[in-house]
Amino acid sequence: MSHLSDLDIAKQSTLKPISEIAEKAGIPNEAIEPYGHFKGKVNINKLENLDSKGKVVLVTALSPTPAGEGKSTVTVGLADAFNQLNEKVMVALREPSLGPVFGMKGGATGGGYAQVLPMEEINLHFNGDLHAITTANNALSAFIDNHIYQGNELNIDSRRVEWKRVLDMNDRELRQVVVGLGGPGRGVPREDGFDITVASEIMAIFCLSNNIKDLKENISNITIGYTFDRKPVTVRDLKVEGALTLILKEAIKPNIVQTIEGTPALVHGGPFANIAHGCNSIIATNTARKLADIVVTESGFGSDLGAEKFMDIKARKAGFDPSAVVIVATIRALKMHGGVNKDSLKTEDVEAVKKGIVNLERHVNNIKQFGVEPVVAINAFIHDTDKEVQFVLDWCKENDIKVALTEVWEKGGKGGIDLAKEVLSVLNSPQQFKHLYDLDLSIEDKINTIVQKVYGGKSVNFSDKALKQLKTIKDNGWDNYPVCMAKTQYSFTDDAKVLGAPTDFNITIRELSPRTGAGFIVALTGDIMTMPGLPKKPAALNMDVAEDGSAIGLF
Amino acid sequence: MSHLSDLDIAKQSTLKPISEIAEKAGIPNEAIEPYGHFKGKVNINKLENLDSKGKVVLVTALSPTPAGEGKSTVTVGLADAFNQLNEKVMVALREPSLGPVFGMKGGATGGGYAQVLPMEEINLHFNGDLHAITTANNALSAFIDNHIYQGNELNIDSRRVEWKRVLDMNDRELRQVVVGLGGPGRGVPREDGFDITVASEIMAIFCLSNNIKDLKENISNITIGYTFDRKPVTVRDLKVEGALTLILKEAIKPNIVQTIEGTPALVHGGPFANIAHGCNSIIATNTARKLADIVVTESGFGSDLGAEKFMDIKARKAGFDPSAVVIVATIRALKMHGGVNKDSLKTEDVEAVKKGIVNLERHVNNIKQFGVEPVVAINAFIHDTDKEVQFVLDWCKENDIKVALTEVWEKGGKGGIDLAKEVLSVLNSPQQFKHLYDLDLSIEDKINTIVQKVYGGKSVNFSDKALKQLKTIKDNGWDNYPVCMAKTQYSFTDDAKVLGAPTDFNITIRELSPRTGAGFIVALTGDIMTMPGLPKKPAALNMDVAEDGSAIGLF
Repeated sequence: MSHLSDLDIAKQSTLKPISEIAEKAGIPNEAIEPYGHFKGKVNINKLENLDSKGKVVLVTALSPTPAGEGKSTVTVGLADAFNQLNEKVMVALREPSLGPVFGMKGGATGGGYAQVLPMEEINLHFNGDLHAITTANNALSAFIDNHIYQGNELNIDSRRVEWKRVLDMNDRELRQVVVGLGGPGRGVPREDGFDITVASEIMAIFCLSNNIKDLKENISNITIGYTFDRKPVTVRDLKVEGALTLILKEAIKPNIVQTIEGTPALVHGGPFANIAHGCNSIIATNTARKLADIVVTESGFGSDLGAEKFMDIKARKAGFDPSAVVIVATIRALKMHGGVNKDSLKTEDVEAVKKGIVNLERHVNNIKQFGVEPVVAINAFIHDTDKEVQFVLDWCKENDIKVALTEVWEKGGKGGIDLAKEVLSVLNSPQQFKHLYDLDLSIEDKINTIVQKVYGGKSVNFSDKALKQLKTIKDNGWDNYPVCMAKTQYSFTDDAKVLGAPTDFNITIRELSPRTGAGFIVALTGDIMTMPGLPKKPAALNMDVAEDGSAIGLF
Repeated sequence: MSHLSDLDIAKQSTLKPISEIAEKAGIPNEAIEPYGHFKGKVNINKLENLDSKGKVVLVTALSPTPAGEGKSTVTVGLADAFNQLNEKVMVALREPSLGPVFGMKGGATGGGYAQVLPMEEINLHFNGDLHAITTANNALSAFIDNHIYQGNELNIDSRRVEWKRVLDMNDRELRQVVVGLGGPGRGVPREDGFDITVASEIMAIFCLSNNIKDLKENISNITIGYTFDRKPVTVRDLKVEGALTLILKEAIKPNIVQTIEGTPALVHGGPFANIAHGCNSIIATNTARKLADIVVTESGFGSDLGAEKFMDIKARKAGFDPSAVVIVATIRALKMHGGVNKDSLKTEDVEAVKKGIVNLERHVNNIKQFGVEPVVAINAFIHDTDKEVQFVLDWCKENDIKVALTEVWEKGGKGGIDLAKEVLSVLNSPQQFKHLYDLDLSIEDKINTIVQKVYGGKSVNFSDKALKQLKTIKDNGWDNYPVCMAKTQYSFTDDAKVLGAPTDFNITIRELSPRTGAGFIVALTGDIMTMPGLPKKPAALNMDVAEDGSAIGLF
């Protein structure tokens, strides 16, 4: 196996001009706006006469562990495999947040020989979408506080402004702040806090809107807080939906890049799946569906988080049925779910794999609940032993689950041919996709359904605060929205330390936030935080720029 | 005169592909990175073998008034005039901040038929430079607070962290805040504040660095605060200069666009001139000097602000002598300096012009002090009368001052031919450029020199805080830096309401901030604020996007 870093491999790859990639994807030249030579934006107005017909393959994974699963890697490699099989394919991914880049997470562009390129630029600023979202979010905050400061015609209760500021940064220091200090010339003092940009409702709206008109309508519907007599105040009341949409007018165009093997990729929108809905934009996915027969896309973390929200929120808004689902599993992660410590993963331990397989089993069953047949992808790592891999293959066979070993990190698309063939067999047989819950259930019942059917839990506790918020939600007629669960990615429970497939546990809903622009209710569980912090030794300490301007230490 | 808005005129213009503009400028194709079809970045590494030889024409103005002067308009129009005269010319401008765009200021891209295009995109996000600067600034804040939170090895006194966060926004609510609230898991509580991005030291460094190596060195030298035993702590101590430079690696490449008449323009870096040093980047100006014989550039506000800092800070660091200076004057502004109210400007009032001419006179004398012969440009507005204009022409003639009437707003370059010829006559005669002060003067003496020689004031008062800071500056050997004055743009004094050419006044230095990365000491006078606020009816209320994605209401 190669000892090159992802960045080394990326730098050694020869990229095709983005015009050539666009042409391959069937995008007319006048619809491409280049950003440098190897990135672009697609002007979707010029593709209006095409129908979104391509089939959607969703890639999800086990409950993640610090060992790493390589979900993006498999997503990219699977698309490259379809490409090698001469299928007309595109990949649709989320774009990375800068916060984790400087913190500890790997890039969001895949790895090894299954990457989207140019990875340096995609991981740093890309075409500016996250900055535009940050700007729109914080412009709204400034408009709200300016409205209050300038006479407060709308009678906004500054203690009940729910709209928070954001930065695309891991910055725990900003989680809870007091703003407007320093006297009458400096605003009105109030409590506030910063979320990371990927948790912004603007990001959710960005990803859940079908076009720019829809974007503006959804932004208008954002509830920014309440008046002194507890009436919701919306962006429409503030009359700034036009300005906020203007800030996003370029960002909303999907970004086109390429995989190492030249497969066209749309990388657009990037909410986290633990604290937000975790899927790339509907505009990107549906644009890819106009251009390709098969669209490979991913949702964040395991089936309990990104995939559930993909099915119940994104697919519902986008108007498509997912046609196949891949669950990425690694021997390493299964061993950790089986109780092995991160430092002992190199030792063969079939018993641990056997013990940890319950985690995979639950994810498989979760996907089946949505009426789609899952395909398990065992993503090969260097220390996997034949016996460990064979155990998983046998287990899948015994349980009549489609499975393939993939070596896309090492071999690119060629390493994903077996997986692609398994997925094709699902695509060629009719699926019975259904949502997990109906929208006319109450918010409590929706949450109960998710907790019991997907997490495998027993029941749900609501904090006093959440109970009060439930009342507000009902009073305002917002209970027909879907629920966007915010939960640790590491466990089916709300405690990150409980691995495997726990049962008989309760989930505590700490807080419920109505997001009337995005059209869902966020349910915060456990101690999940919407602004991450940096580790003691952030990845930033190893980063640098060479004198020729190229990146050093970026993964 | 046309009744079209600047945006209307911009939309009616036919742009040339950026590759064509670059070719005209003599930039090899491989050095251009397109951002859309009409914007690009210049990879300056590919121009290394060229010398920076072009002459620099600086455009400054009267003390600005709400009536508007059109400095950017004259800058663009003058370059277009040179172009019509077949001179090899480029224009080098600052890039706009989003804060004023949503507040009340006009665009920073000129007006009428003297604009740089595409104005919509230049005024909104452009190629992402300001976002990169915001990100680098706030990443540093996150690294500082994380360092303190994770054990504080460097012994940083959290009460003496001088590094503030920034947003590219007019948001008074963030001027003074408390961060790190909510208990031990959420950081260390301390006072903080947000400046607007254009006031960030990162922006200053960005504009004052000669290349990426220099950029990194300057970032290393930033003083972020002090230890408990009052020793300065630098970015070098935190070991994050590599990561911060990485964040800026694309932004540091100058942006190329075009004027309405197809003159190549570099638009790069944008510190405000009231709260920062007010000039575009050295990299852009010196790149333009590699490509053109004449580079027309501007500095913010009047000669007391942008031009003084252009001469004493930018030109010193960049290693060039300005070869000519244009002072933009309008009849409207002269009338306001002569005591006329904004609402009465349409009435002929030669007496008021005569009274207000003292403001022009002082700006003329200021430029002469730098050893460069100024040229006055009377920027025509629709309600100017012949008598008013003639008065100024006569006054200039009597005082042996070069002058030209310009009509670039209405006529583009053709309206600036007379001005261009006057400027050429200066360019063709040797100038004796000198800085206003030597660096080995003390900080007090430098400030005194600026106040007495440029502002026309009598003396300088230092607040108790400033006096303490002076001691810190001396103790640390920072008194050989130039001074970056932060002062209201509307008056030579520190009181925005005192127009004309006041004498016999004192200036109060409220605060002195050492910027050891940028290499200057910021002196805050009066009540100047480094984070603006929004007006009661922000410009944002009129903004929107059409369904075809084009901007509405952007000026």
